[in-house]
Amino acid sequence: MALIVQKYGGTSVANPERIRNVARRVARYKSMGHQVVVVVSAMSGETNRLIGLARELMEDPDPRELDTIVSTGEQVTIGMTALALIELGIKAKSYTGAQVKILTDDSHTKARILNIDQHNLKADLDAGYVCVVAGFQGVDAQGNITTLGRGGSDTTGVALAAALGADECQIYTDVDGVYTTDPRVVPEARRLKSITFEEMLELASQGSKVLQIRSVEFAGKYKVKLRVLSSFEDEGDGTLITFEEDGKDEDNMENPIISGIAFNRDEAKITVLGVPDKPGIAYQILGPIADANIDVDMIIQNTGADGTTDFTFTVHKNEMGKALAVLRDKVQGHINAREISGDDKIAKVSVVGIGMRSHVGIASQMFRTLAEEGINIQMISTSEIKIAVVIDEKYMELAVRVLHKAFELESA
Amino acid sequence: MALIVQKYGGTSVANPERIRNVARRVARYKSMGHQVVVVVSAMSGETNRLIGLARELMEDPDPRELDTIVSTGEQVTIGMTALALIELGIKAKSYTGAQVKILTDDSHTKARILNIDQHNLKADLDAGYVCVVAGFQGVDAQGNITTLGRGGSDTTGVALAAALGADECQIYTDVDGVYTTDPRVVPEARRLKSITFEEMLELASQGSKVLQIRSVEFAGKYKVKLRVLSSFEDEGDGTLITFEEDGKDEDNMENPIISGIAFNRDEAKITVLGVPDKPGIAYQILGPIADANIDVDMIIQNTGADGTTDFTFTVHKNEMGKALAVLRDKVQGHINAREISGDDKIAKVSVVGIGMRSHVGIASQMFRTLAEEGINIQMISTSEIKIAVVIDEKYMELAVRVLHKAFELESA
Repeated sequence: MALIVQKYGGTSVANPERIRNVARRVARYKSMGHQVVVVVSAMSGETNRLIGLARELMEDPDPRELDTIVSTGEQVTIGMTALALIELGIKAKSYTGAQVKILTDDSHTKARILNIDQHNLKADLDAGYVCVVAGFQGVDAQGNITTLGRGGSDTTGVALAAALGADECQIYTDVDGVYTTDPRVVPEARRLKSITFEEMLELASQGSKVLQIRSVEFAGKYKVKLRVLSSFEDEGDGTLITFEEDGKDEDNMENPIISGIAFNRDEAKITVLGVPDKPGIAYQILGPIADANIDVDMIIQNTGADGTTDFTFTVHKNEMGKALAVLRDKVQGHINAREISGDDKIAKVSVVGIGMRSHVGIASQMFRTLAEEGINIQMISTSEIKIAVVIDEKYMELAVRVLHKAFELESA
Repeated sequence: MALIVQKYGGTSVANPERIRNVARRVARYKSMGHQVVVVVSAMSGETNRLIGLARELMEDPDPRELDTIVSTGEQVTIGMTALALIELGIKAKSYTGAQVKILTDDSHTKARILNIDQHNLKADLDAGYVCVVAGFQGVDAQGNITTLGRGGSDTTGVALAAALGADECQIYTDVDGVYTTDPRVVPEARRLKSITFEEMLELASQGSKVLQIRSVEFAGKYKVKLRVLSSFEDEGDGTLITFEEDGKDEDNMENPIISGIAFNRDEAKITVLGVPDKPGIAYQILGPIADANIDVDMIIQNTGADGTTDFTFTVHKNEMGKALAVLRDKVQGHINAREISGDDKIAKVSVVGIGMRSHVGIASQMFRTLAEEGINIQMISTSEIKIAVVIDEKYMELAVRVLHKAFELESA
């Protein structure tokens, strides 16, 4: 007998028929003798409908009241899912975040979980109940309803699995696992049986939309065994997210060097040209950007021969205009920069793999592959298990395809 | 400075525009220096939508889960109403039943309020907040969400007013007060400036749909000053519900003898003919009816000359078939009744007035008025402040009109 936490997203519970499917899967796990905790999101579209209602009254709604309104989305789904289970003859009980007591801080609309009281859930599980818990929501110390922000249901699932010491946390989505890259770009993309937490983190942050990055961090921190599965297929083991301790690293020979290719076109590049090459320049440029609450991803500085340097960084596309304005208003004159320019026609492509730590030559193979196709590399950034390059947006799909082939990701 | 509880029903908060109107009225009371607690129902149609969703999964939904689902209706409205107030620059805070802690028993879908914790509300009111409380819902001792049943928002309003020692509980509806009778039937019907609790109770139970009977009982028990007002008009003082202690009875001369005419056509008449006239018969007939959970309203027994008796009672129209089946299966043979018949083409018309206690002749005036129109009376039932008759349904409107005129209700 195992204790399993299953999390179902909005598309998996989009209507009563799909909720019935979820109940049938839960019933199968129950009939195998497992204890099951189900975490559900709001029915797809519901959260946006509720936010829309709130915005009719207040353009930028008061966050406490917005949380009170939006949290009803998951509350409806837990009741519905419990009903579907009871209809199948399964003992089931719904829990709001407040009823579990998922204690969070008081940052409405983006609260962080502080503690989960597992007492009631454990008692109900031991009494044979399936516990259906509302994702995405909690309660602060004063009893105010909070939400964890978009994608927070994944985090709820992982946090519950950690608190209950669950054997596995299964995240059901509309894809059947983590792929070597997006199958819409590379039809030969292959589902990975397993992937390390660190690789998953890189793939998630690099634009693979399978799991919310915060939930993956959470799983890593609490060593929760995480599995991504499709809610629309009954077959398949999905992709297991492992941790180095699980032994993958020790047995490096059998593992592929590269796990996948991530990409995204959400970023824009900002270049500050002809900056005097002296200490404190990076801070003088990025300080005002940070003060304006603009997140920066890649940062590169190249020193030229003439005593000046070029400074380049990337921000989200939506914030390019704001970042340029900040630089022109508050920075350019100050540091005496020659020119400030922005480019939002870029894409980032990353090769991710835990195996690359012990294998030299990945970078050179990547660069040669791109060069052979005539794709110019504008920026390079590396971590222990990732090499990311910024290229012209129009070459993005080509780059992903040739890299996928070069690293032989289509073969198991 | 007064403390006022205002309750708004579903039609008063049916959409964001109407919620804005509610906020404007609350703002006016606030600007007069009053403390205001607002109780709101779900936006009209929402409760039925949610019940419909639940029924797609389970024909007779588990009551605990149904309450979890349905209670989200009011939760959305409290957030929306608080937003509308905040947008007007008023400090406001929403409260679910659980957040107030409206403690109820555990009878899901028809829970009764046991206690209201007024601590948090008082503190917020004293800090200048308008508290917006979800009607219709509470929480049991185990933290399960409960609902009070249809119309329960009125009860929430009155119970809060009692717990907080409010100066007045204002019930906003789509009518502007209590009338001598339904203006759709008698255009001359007149709004009553005040009505006693007992009369209101009779009018409500006799079919006047203005207030839920349970909330009126509650108001009487806790001596809450209750006022019925229109949420669609800014003028008018509505109708104040008074208690005898308020002095109305002492000053009987100035009060009308009759306050109003109530009517309803929701009942059906069941007659058991030719029953042996001996002790225990009433119990033998009504026991099985009660066991089948069928509510009985009027009961009449007439003894004939031949040692048999006829026994007649009324039930809700929807339950006539069930009641007849119970009688034929379990009673008829047993008590050797000659015949059992049902008639759902009846209507009940009642004359209500606290003044009739000290005025003889009301009954005879009522019966004469009906006789003059050739309306046959099938059943009569009286209480201290009411005379109700059952007549053929087709004469109902005529009866109401002629009685309204006979008792001069059109003149103040």
